Amino acid sequence: MVDYSIGVDLGGTNLRAAAITGAGEVLAKIAGTTNLSEGRHKVLEDMVNSVCKLRDQFGPKQLAGIGIGVPGFIVLETGTIVGSNNLAVFDGAPIRDEIEQRLGVPVCLENDANAAALGEKWIGAGREVDDLVLITLGTGVGGGIIFGGKILHGKVGMAGELGHMTVVPNGYPCGCGNRGCLEKHASATAITCMAKLLQLGSEMTAKDVYDLALSGNQKAVMIFESMGEALGIALASLINIFNFPLYLLSGGPLASWDLFAPTMIAEIRKRSFTYRNDQTRIEKAMLGNQAGLFGAAYLGFEAASLRSTALASTTA
Amino acid sequence: MVDYSIGVDLGGTNLRAAAITGAGEVLAKIAGTTNLSEGRHKVLEDMVNSVCKLRDQFGPKQLAGIGIGVPGFIVLETGTIVGSNNLAVFDGAPIRDEIEQRLGVPVCLENDANAAALGEKWIGAGREVDDLVLITLGTGVGGGIIFGGKILHGKVGMAGELGHMTVVPNGYPCGCGNRGCLEKHASATAITCMAKLLQLGSEMTAKDVYDLALSGNQKAVMIFESMGEALGIALASLINIFNFPLYLLSGGPLASWDLFAPTMIAEIRKRSFTYRNDQTRIEKAMLGNQAGLFGAAYLGFEAASLRSTALASTTA
Repeated sequence: MVDYSIGVDLGGTNLRAAAITGAGEVLAKIAGTTNLSEGRHKVLEDMVNSVCKLRDQFGPKQLAGIGIGVPGFIVLETGTIVGSNNLAVFDGAPIRDEIEQRLGVPVCLENDANAAALGEKWIGAGREVDDLVLITLGTGVGGGIIFGGKILHGKVGMAGELGHMTVVPNGYPCGCGNRGCLEKHASATAITCMAKLLQLGSEMTAKDVYDLALSGNQKAVMIFESMGEALGIALASLINIFNFPLYLLSGGPLASWDLFAPTMIAEIRKRSFTYRNDQTRIEKAMLGNQAGLFGAAYLGFEAASLRSTALASTTA
Repeated sequence: MVDYSIGVDLGGTNLRAAAITGAGEVLAKIAGTTNLSEGRHKVLEDMVNSVCKLRDQFGPKQLAGIGIGVPGFIVLETGTIVGSNNLAVFDGAPIRDEIEQRLGVPVCLENDANAAALGEKWIGAGREVDDLVLITLGTGVGGGIIFGGKILHGKVGMAGELGHMTVVPNGYPCGCGNRGCLEKHASATAITCMAKLLQLGSEMTAKDVYDLALSGNQKAVMIFESMGEALGIALASLINIFNFPLYLLSGGPLASWDLFAPTMIAEIRKRSFTYRNDQTRIEKAMLGNQAGLFGAAYLGFEAASLRSTALASTTA
């Protein structure tokens, strides 16, 4: 049997896991629900059960490690989540160590957008570059920065919080304490809020607003232009900061690419000398909502290899 | 005699050079003027003469290499400057190769703020960290990012253009094509422009505005608060992006630290969850206008070591 790693994507709504080989082949996937209302222990229990099911199927000896992508700020050293709106029940809990102890396999805990960026680098739209930025558009906006083929973590692991870049100094208030964060101006939530502000309807989904824009409604069209402007401001600054070859976007709102991208690119062109003078690719990510699973699995392999290096140096 | 490198700081106004040892000891300095009005060849001539003077004094055999810091975007591969407002006469000219050929010593061309950031890392306020961001405040605003002890260059060498981050989406127009660039809201030029807008006087220097603020003039005080706000917006985004341990500021306007820093820190605190939850130092750089000379000298040593590695692999 082949060696594999298990990638877990623990979201506020969905809990998914996949057994993936070192060549990036998906052996099997499990999809379930994150039962937050039943508390932290139940969610952990569900996650451990999913992992065990895959482990039983593909062999305990062949399992290299486990990677877990979660929304929120990660403190790498302690393997804890802090300040996650979606997984508040885990705030400060040592979930990496708990899972490691229960399963006896190296575990890596990572921010979900970082994991997705790594997945795109490993096996998706970023395969051919070493440096890239991924912006994930969803309920909120996340970010992952890959530099030299590795996740840029910063001091404790909080780097890449691109959804909290200020794009409108006095813009909409954000749960993080700031005003005018990118995620308040360019996420699925931002789209539905703007629809409400424009009195298009208070119960509309982002998809409804998209359909309305396609049907020619000028207010709905403006919403996507406004989102493109916010993304363009953030991306232009990121290009001026990094001069990377590739910037990727992913997530549900990507479906409206044709509506927001022209404004986004026009903003970037205006706001970045580097963009105008060097070839910079701004593209859709390739792996959709699987990117995080792939990245998490990659981290499982990495955790295993770090563990064996550490063991080797202890016994040497 | 001791091995040394020559660091050159080629500004729009001043041309300076220093012979510096591998331990960071300054053997000698030369300060002159950049005679831009007499054309590119005259400036090159002056630079070569300064270098020769130091080389004659400290020995040609002991000279490892030369590093040159210049304002503007650098294309590393070709060793050219593009889009420099201050050194337009050099636009696109292969000045690295010209100097290398004339002197027969490895030469490294680098953006001046990148060189300054490296100088601070080598021997200044960043000695004890591997990752830092430097923002240089002057006529314009420059930036340098050090990651893992090295300059973050990006694809062609244009990374770190922090002065062109958008901090006010519809702010003052900038020569780079954007509006609301950090350097239009937080530089010596920005200070004097705001003084003019507030009818404090059209001929005031940044120092005059500073003195006026110290004397209690509320309009002058507002100018520095406005500058602090712009810096705070940019720094909060940088902290959210990088989660680095240290962010440095340097340049003439630092003299007004007590006037702009309180607003700056308040903005950062509001706009960065990471700042509030992790220890992040925001400090004055230590080396003043010598940082670029030190960083350039360091790059001279590096150019020499790269050259000998390349030679070794050719002869191997």
